[in-house]
Amino acid sequence: MKVGIVGLGLIGGSLGLDLRSQGIEVLGVARRDRTCELARIRNVVDAASTNLNFLSPADIIFICTPLTVIAPTVRQLLPYLNSETILTDVGSVKASIVKSCEGLGVSFVGGHPMAGTEERGVEAARRGLFVGTPYVLTPGKTSPSEAVEQVADIARSLGATVYTCSPTVHDRAVSLISHLPLFASAGLIETCMGEAEPDILTLAQQLASSGFRDTSRVGGGNPELGVEIARHNRTQLLRSLYQYRQTLDRAIAQIEGEDWESLERALSGDRAARPLFLS
Amino acid sequence: MKVGIVGLGLIGGSLGLDLRSQGIEVLGVARRDRTCELARIRNVVDAASTNLNFLSPADIIFICTPLTVIAPTVRQLLPYLNSETILTDVGSVKASIVKSCEGLGVSFVGGHPMAGTEERGVEAARRGLFVGTPYVLTPGKTSPSEAVEQVADIARSLGATVYTCSPTVHDRAVSLISHLPLFASAGLIETCMGEAEPDILTLAQQLASSGFRDTSRVGGGNPELGVEIARHNRTQLLRSLYQYRQTLDRAIAQIEGEDWESLERALSGDRAARPLFLS
Repeated sequence: MKVGIVGLGLIGGSLGLDLRSQGIEVLGVARRDRTCELARIRNVVDAASTNLNFLSPADIIFICTPLTVIAPTVRQLLPYLNSETILTDVGSVKASIVKSCEGLGVSFVGGHPMAGTEERGVEAARRGLFVGTPYVLTPGKTSPSEAVEQVADIARSLGATVYTCSPTVHDRAVSLISHLPLFASAGLIETCMGEAEPDILTLAQQLASSGFRDTSRVGGGNPELGVEIARHNRTQLLRSLYQYRQTLDRAIAQIEGEDWESLERALSGDRAARPLFLS
Repeated sequence: MKVGIVGLGLIGGSLGLDLRSQGIEVLGVARRDRTCELARIRNVVDAASTNLNFLSPADIIFICTPLTVIAPTVRQLLPYLNSETILTDVGSVKASIVKSCEGLGVSFVGGHPMAGTEERGVEAARRGLFVGTPYVLTPGKTSPSEAVEQVADIARSLGATVYTCSPTVHDRAVSLISHLPLFASAGLIETCMGEAEPDILTLAQQLASSGFRDTSRVGGGNPELGVEIARHNRTQLLRSLYQYRQTLDRAIAQIEGEDWESLERALSGDRAARPLFLS
């Protein structure tokens, strides 16, 4: 089997390292010559090019580019594919991408490996990145079941746990546990910075500790990624944000109305529910 | 110098351990005999009792009880104090407590050591808990400056960094970096649990990872503490919650209006601002 990878960053690069360690031949494509060179030096690929036609011998191609570039990349690849080639992506939003790729006459299987670190680029690529992490597959109406099974087999060979669901169910679930937390967290930093009295802002900065550090972490990350998520998962993110606002309004009403019993019941429910998300 | 401690939990107990290691005599008071016994066994105090009159020889008394019990404890201590005794507390909200204790004719200095772990009780007490942490003093109108200086000296001897400000400035600052994050975090768990479709909720629980873990940590903590904070810092917490809601509404409007430029500017600002809170 020959595997092609478009986009040799953290995810694409780590995928290449793991697949090569299984004896699979990996062909890479990156936008810049320098990335291709680094990928070869770091043994992330067997060979690399800046030209998509380089991937025509591949049996399966992983598209590991930023979200916005995934569907255009699939379209640009069309001339170089044969009828057996399987395409899959690693984007963190699925419905819009699966919709764009359906009807192009290719075997496309939407995928989302939920692995990563704060680092980026081929320099950050490492073996075993996917071990023990969830890998979601979101086949569309036109994804052949053998193609889905083949991508699932590769994901399992990386040590990931495979989940299969519809693109919309995926987008809704990640809007709740990943995208909403990002914007809720960013909003905390912004609210603190909006404090008008300089002595209070200074003291807040001096006193902030581990609670603020943890709660603000995902909100203080890469702004381009936040915008990409909002663009591509706009509908589900807005739905989650509106539901979050309702939850906050309920807490505000309890505190304003000094309804401490209801507030304690809600907080007790939160404490009891949290471990369900951490198994 | 003799130091009295009312409430031999994590903070009171750790304070006792550190002060005794400096050769200071520590007298403790706890509600239950069993806690007094444990405190003696663990060398947290030189001697302990369930009776507040036990502290009449103390030069300075730290009140380390839950927030609701601080002002009543000060009132109950009055018969056993002499004119030189200094009282201070370790509550996480200051304005209401300082107000209650002003006018009682005692030297009261509000304090808030910002140290702690997830654990509770005298069993969790440990040496060095305060090293490198902020210790805020919030003297009221009637706090003698020598009393403030004496509490500050003790706080510094524990390895803490002392900040002095008005009770209201303290409450406003901690509402932003500590109390608001707690309720924003709890709201995330509650919003996720409110998902009506069982398959989406199950998938969300399976996919939640480090981002959700960190963002939900303080919201999944002790419900009684959350209610205590809301009761005692109600005004400032509500102000912060309203400002947070405005920030969220701005993000919602940007996402609804597909104003990606403004959204990216806001997220870039958050990324740039976060390190100011983590020094």
